[in-house]
Amino acid sequence: MAAKRILVIGGSAAGPKAAAKARRLDETAEVILLQKGGDLSMASCGYPYYVGGTFDDRNMLLCTPAGVVRDPKFYLNAKAIDARVNTEATAIDRKAKTVAFRKTDSGETGTLPYDKLILATGAVPRVPPVPGIDLDGITTLQSMKDADFLRSVRDEKKIKKAVVVGGGLIGIETAEALQESGIEVTVVEMLPQLLSFLDFEMARLVENHIRAKGVNVITGNGVAEFLGKDGKICGVKLKNGTELECEIAVNAIGVVPNVKLARDAGLEIGALGGITVDEHMRTNDKDIYAVGDCVEIVNRITGKKILAPFGDLANLEGRVAGENAIAGDTVSFPGSIQTGICKVFDFSAGSTGLSEANAARNGIADIVTVVNASTDKPGFMGGMLVVTKLLARKADGKILGAQVVGPGNVCKQVAQWAMAIMAGMTVEDMVNADLPYAPPFSLALDHSIATAHIMQNKLKGRLKGISVTEVKRKLDAGEKPFILDARGPDEYEAMRLGIGETLIPLGAIRKRLAELPADKNAEIICYCKVSLRGYEAALILEANGWKNVRVMEGGIMAWPWGRER
Amino acid sequence: MAAKRILVIGGSAAGPKAAAKARRLDETAEVILLQKGGDLSMASCGYPYYVGGTFDDRNMLLCTPAGVVRDPKFYLNAKAIDARVNTEATAIDRKAKTVAFRKTDSGETGTLPYDKLILATGAVPRVPPVPGIDLDGITTLQSMKDADFLRSVRDEKKIKKAVVVGGGLIGIETAEALQESGIEVTVVEMLPQLLSFLDFEMARLVENHIRAKGVNVITGNGVAEFLGKDGKICGVKLKNGTELECEIAVNAIGVVPNVKLARDAGLEIGALGGITVDEHMRTNDKDIYAVGDCVEIVNRITGKKILAPFGDLANLEGRVAGENAIAGDTVSFPGSIQTGICKVFDFSAGSTGLSEANAARNGIADIVTVVNASTDKPGFMGGMLVVTKLLARKADGKILGAQVVGPGNVCKQVAQWAMAIMAGMTVEDMVNADLPYAPPFSLALDHSIATAHIMQNKLKGRLKGISVTEVKRKLDAGEKPFILDARGPDEYEAMRLGIGETLIPLGAIRKRLAELPADKNAEIICYCKVSLRGYEAALILEANGWKNVRVMEGGIMAWPWGRER
Repeated sequence: MAAKRILVIGGSAAGPKAAAKARRLDETAEVILLQKGGDLSMASCGYPYYVGGTFDDRNMLLCTPAGVVRDPKFYLNAKAIDARVNTEATAIDRKAKTVAFRKTDSGETGTLPYDKLILATGAVPRVPPVPGIDLDGITTLQSMKDADFLRSVRDEKKIKKAVVVGGGLIGIETAEALQESGIEVTVVEMLPQLLSFLDFEMARLVENHIRAKGVNVITGNGVAEFLGKDGKICGVKLKNGTELECEIAVNAIGVVPNVKLARDAGLEIGALGGITVDEHMRTNDKDIYAVGDCVEIVNRITGKKILAPFGDLANLEGRVAGENAIAGDTVSFPGSIQTGICKVFDFSAGSTGLSEANAARNGIADIVTVVNASTDKPGFMGGMLVVTKLLARKADGKILGAQVVGPGNVCKQVAQWAMAIMAGMTVEDMVNADLPYAPPFSLALDHSIATAHIMQNKLKGRLKGISVTEVKRKLDAGEKPFILDARGPDEYEAMRLGIGETLIPLGAIRKRLAELPADKNAEIICYCKVSLRGYEAALILEANGWKNVRVMEGGIMAWPWGRER
Repeated sequence: MAAKRILVIGGSAAGPKAAAKARRLDETAEVILLQKGGDLSMASCGYPYYVGGTFDDRNMLLCTPAGVVRDPKFYLNAKAIDARVNTEATAIDRKAKTVAFRKTDSGETGTLPYDKLILATGAVPRVPPVPGIDLDGITTLQSMKDADFLRSVRDEKKIKKAVVVGGGLIGIETAEALQESGIEVTVVEMLPQLLSFLDFEMARLVENHIRAKGVNVITGNGVAEFLGKDGKICGVKLKNGTELECEIAVNAIGVVPNVKLARDAGLEIGALGGITVDEHMRTNDKDIYAVGDCVEIVNRITGKKILAPFGDLANLEGRVAGENAIAGDTVSFPGSIQTGICKVFDFSAGSTGLSEANAARNGIADIVTVVNASTDKPGFMGGMLVVTKLLARKADGKILGAQVVGPGNVCKQVAQWAMAIMAGMTVEDMVNADLPYAPPFSLALDHSIATAHIMQNKLKGRLKGISVTEVKRKLDAGEKPFILDARGPDEYEAMRLGIGETLIPLGAIRKRLAELPADKNAEIICYCKVSLRGYEAALILEANGWKNVRVMEGGIMAWPWGRER
């Protein structure tokens, strides 16, 4: 039997993973990988950290853990993969089962036959379709070349002001990298909030932190025009007429699946613009697979197709396609629950499963949310704040989503909830979870367990919560609920909301009930720093006959608007 | 209806939690808590960090997150709990439903009636039954008083040498605390290894780190006698005759459930010496619950009873008993999967589910193990090593246990596996897990996912692994397998095992097959730094006809014995 010919197009993450997996499963196969650019297996998620100076050796983005650059020689020797750089695939002939290519350096052309073809053509950055987009100094952060340019900006120390267009993951990471390089940065986001994987009030906590770090943030506004002088950018004009001076601008408004090759070959393209694949990562051609940023995959919660251009998923998809290309369609990729995380200066912000807004967009109404704020470990171990918003299905308590932000250990929290969602766990399953506890790592009851307790109390009707958003809405609408801050006087002196609250420390409430509204039906909202004492206060009031008492979830720590102190 | 009388005995972790939960569910109940000592709600897991100087304010161990000391006044005002310190419960009259008490300060006695009684009498430290045990300078680290004593040792800087008897969690934490205080410490452990929740070869990696930090470790030896002079300890004599000089000794050989009160009252005591409770945390008396270190609970994997004296479980059990005491037996505690973690200088060591040794003790033979070593995040982000040993059931790949050690982010890894075990997930469920990825937090394929991939390859028969322990056994037995190190020459120069290996870099193997044994049935063992290249080398050899090739799992990073370099 002739050796199987596996042809892979794309050399970033998914392609090399597919090629390597195919090789491991079949030492006799011929495995060829075509890469349009000059680099292979770039750790592209690391670009912002190279730009921001976390490390200085550019080669670290291209190396194996043992320090060997992943160049064609490495692929040939270590993996027996024929990796051809500067080689653009120009057309697929599905009938002949060949791919036409062109060498971008020499202009040489040719065709290569395949038994199985794996497309990993990635995505291309979106750019705002506005005047001035071609000016010098406007870039994205999508390629090694982009990273080199922005790193040179850092190293040369000539640029004073930058505008980052787009407040998503890459935009925020880029803004941090430039700010850390001593550049004054303004982030411009068209939506009313940054980081749209978070619900508004959670994103707002992150935005406060970004602002506190000195980054300017403009939300609810888009770019109308890039302004230039002598062919170079000198400013950005926004849709509301504001003009921002700058010497560079970085477009980070997302990416679009790169599907030209697939579309020209008649492969099926989905409604979101990505290549359609089945659970085996196979296209509608039985000999062609597609993986990575160019495909649409399934959201495991909603069952709907999504675009999910993330490096971790690209690797997993590549591994599945590589195996199926060799062994037949024997393994499946289950899709994504849309887990993500982002470092934001001293904060982290992560999410898994559905946000409240995403649930609403998907018509999922049967949900309950809670917000919990606490430290990640004991105060005596230097614990830092984490704020979690948890979503569960009302009917059965099934966990649907979690967002976590703050300076504390967000990653562990998100990872735990991601596991819970993948496993189909309920709130009850988390209530008595057995997680690793010792003071250097966790509270005795981990923040996630306490969050489950709060959700359980809410599902059982014991905790009647109200979100900070709803409290703000009431106040803005001129409503006058009785607002009770249950902290101590010292705490109140040091920090307070100033939204018309009355301070009655928890320990004094039972003796000071006369200060509460005489009308037992009056609306009362209780809180404290994180709303544990607020909850206990509410229980005392309810036991004493007040009928309309709610706890502001997450307390002051979850309040994303201005405070009096 | 008269107010319900809830009486709680024990004021450390489980007792106060039960009392607080009862109060929250019933504002009208009378809740009384008896505490033999003078302190309440001590964060006892934090003692080693106070002793070791992580923080200096003793009150932090006794405070709420808002900085209020949890004393009787706090309990009365904030929780309406009548917490009586220096009050020892001396007998339970189950027929009369009363508890006799004695004030330890005044000697006053009395009785208290109860409707529901919750026992949280904790555990008492075991001490070696050897001569000299009463000498001055011999302590445990179980009480606030112990912590105060050992902290004074640190502060006074007079003690030069200490012996810690017992190499479990508390022993190791105490050894670190004393070592960090400038004291020369020797840990003496009767078993052949430290930290018995780990398998031998994993514990050995931790032991190597402890030794590298300057702590002396003696395993496989016990204390025969404490040696004294003028009533004060001056040394420890071991069973093999060795004498160790020291000025203090800390006994940390575990705890025994404190069940005297329960036993005297005729409550059922289990085979392991703890109070027998059902899933509602109820004893064999329908009005008496028991929680915390004094009870036996269920191992959720084996279904067998265990002692699990951990602060996180105590809190969860207390919450369940508090609710059941008020609301009837409506909620259940599912037991433990024995998740634990421990900081060990710059390492962490954690475990969840079954170890290989524990599986064997429980007669569970149908298992597969793999070891994976990798960094926790990319090298360019300062990634640090984690080594995981994963256990799965051979028949269906169900995940049964994981141990993780190393300087990297162990806690997240253990937490993820704990979630997987609680949810009953299989290796296949983890293979395409969607976990939070960004370079500051994780590899593109998280260490846990890569571990699942290795296990999958092993379960599918693609990876034929051999443990470091088995390799060592073969070498010690004089066997001469062909050992292939697949790393590069520079790496080999810098670090190598020196166990008779031949260096053939992965990239050269296909051209240097002639250097392999001519006999295609010869035993060959491949490895590299972490055994990814070792795995690829093995695949190449198998594809070229060698039939007896295995990969040493975890590579050099998992080798716990001495290296040539």
